[in-house]
Amino acid sequence: MEAESWAECMDVAVKTALRAGQMVRVSVMQEKHVSSKSTPTDLVTEADQQVEDLIISTLREHFPSHRFIGEESSAAGEKCILTDNPTWIIDPIDGTCNFVHSFPMVAVSIGFAVKKQLEFGVVYHCLDGTLYTGRRGHGAFCNGVRLHVSKEKDVSKALILTEIGAKREPHTLDIFLGNMKQLLSAPVHGVRIIGSSTLALCQVATGAAEAYYQYGLHCWDIAAAAIIITEAGGCVIDTTGGPLDLMSRRVVAAGSQEIADYIVQRLKPINYGRDDDDP
Amino acid sequence: MEAESWAECMDVAVKTALRAGQMVRVSVMQEKHVSSKSTPTDLVTEADQQVEDLIISTLREHFPSHRFIGEESSAAGEKCILTDNPTWIIDPIDGTCNFVHSFPMVAVSIGFAVKKQLEFGVVYHCLDGTLYTGRRGHGAFCNGVRLHVSKEKDVSKALILTEIGAKREPHTLDIFLGNMKQLLSAPVHGVRIIGSSTLALCQVATGAAEAYYQYGLHCWDIAAAAIIITEAGGCVIDTTGGPLDLMSRRVVAAGSQEIADYIVQRLKPINYGRDDDDP
Repeated sequence: MEAESWAECMDVAVKTALRAGQMVRVSVMQEKHVSSKSTPTDLVTEADQQVEDLIISTLREHFPSHRFIGEESSAAGEKCILTDNPTWIIDPIDGTCNFVHSFPMVAVSIGFAVKKQLEFGVVYHCLDGTLYTGRRGHGAFCNGVRLHVSKEKDVSKALILTEIGAKREPHTLDIFLGNMKQLLSAPVHGVRIIGSSTLALCQVATGAAEAYYQYGLHCWDIAAAAIIITEAGGCVIDTTGGPLDLMSRRVVAAGSQEIADYIVQRLKPINYGRDDDDP
Repeated sequence: MEAESWAECMDVAVKTALRAGQMVRVSVMQEKHVSSKSTPTDLVTEADQQVEDLIISTLREHFPSHRFIGEESSAAGEKCILTDNPTWIIDPIDGTCNFVHSFPMVAVSIGFAVKKQLEFGVVYHCLDGTLYTGRRGHGAFCNGVRLHVSKEKDVSKALILTEIGAKREPHTLDIFLGNMKQLLSAPVHGVRIIGSSTLALCQVATGAAEAYYQYGLHCWDIAAAAIIITEAGGCVIDTTGGPLDLMSRRVVAAGSQEIADYIVQRLKPINYGRDDDDP
């Protein structure tokens, strides 16, 4: 398939995200059967699996030779390895804890990479109907309106987003809260925790937040939003300051390099392993 | 005016909140002139004052004998004293920091008290058009749909909301983050910080969150949402476990008494003084 034809893949991704989002909207009103995965606070519902099945079966029908990395397939034991092959990276319900509570921050996230490079991303905020898209070299959009990151360079005027990872041991919490204290002491304008990494990253793309950082997220939380942010003019890097490693379970994203650098210099790391580690 | 006729006041409050919300929606797209009040992170814009002027002038025209407590009037030096007279308690833009960043969590909050008892509250989420209302003895509603709080009693299944106050000295941050650690260690399902006390409290009323707590908020952040929560079946109390004191700058709200008690027992206090202190 020619590079130019990734546009066709993106069209299918958008239609599939909208269909999946409709399924999430229906499910959020119903009783949920909740269980946990890696820790008591790492939740999953039947809906996560059903929505992922819908997304992967639809995409596989259109693109049978492509590879798929999905949150629930990985939880079920499928290897989570990014190769050079065209690969879809899918979070069926980003913000599962929010979904469980019907807290209105829930998204479908579909990213697409070829030769380990992100080609496009589609994020659909199911409950308010906002659609974020970005395609390499073609810009980022929210409901059709071109997105531009905040160009603020002064961290004391920044709104920063983060998420609490699934680990809740005292040592991990101390590092997480210590990192928050570092930024609140700058002082930044504020720190927000909304419960969906994907939607939080999209706020960096719209310019509503200057930055996002997190330890403990997964490739399916980052993939789609990362290309949306870079196409909106922002940077998405590793917490050490180097290039983003999709499988590293950590990220700093920002509108300006200056704010990204400030955050990188102040974070203490939390080790969550890698997505492509052997289980 | 007879008690029954507070319904007329509420009708005017809803219409005024919708008009004010339209003004906020227009302002959020424009350049903001930002300055700070009590601390560098306690922000205010020209829009806060303009929206409060619109609200108070409209209400005063209808109810010339009533008293008014507004965020910006208080900042300008008007005394913030709750008497037995019919009193409107107004936050023109709750979530000013969000407003400054165009982060989409911004509300108009209008509460109404007589003989120091809250009679009704109106909260309008300006950017997504959600209207929350509650009237004493008549229930709470979101866009016309009756609201019920979460009846969850097990804190380990709770989603808890809080806000960072305006104080950012190391000692205050240590208590704030220590309180968060206490709850994250329970472990609760999650903690969220969305940047609008009023909208966070409304999430307790809808049942999307089990609880909210904060030190450092003001009577105009609590008044409208408090009656919405109690009318949805929840409890709104002081951080010591006693009855809510609107002027005390602290609150615990929850769907169930059990979760409220759990939080009350674990919080360390942060002293922000009182709204009715002499400045």
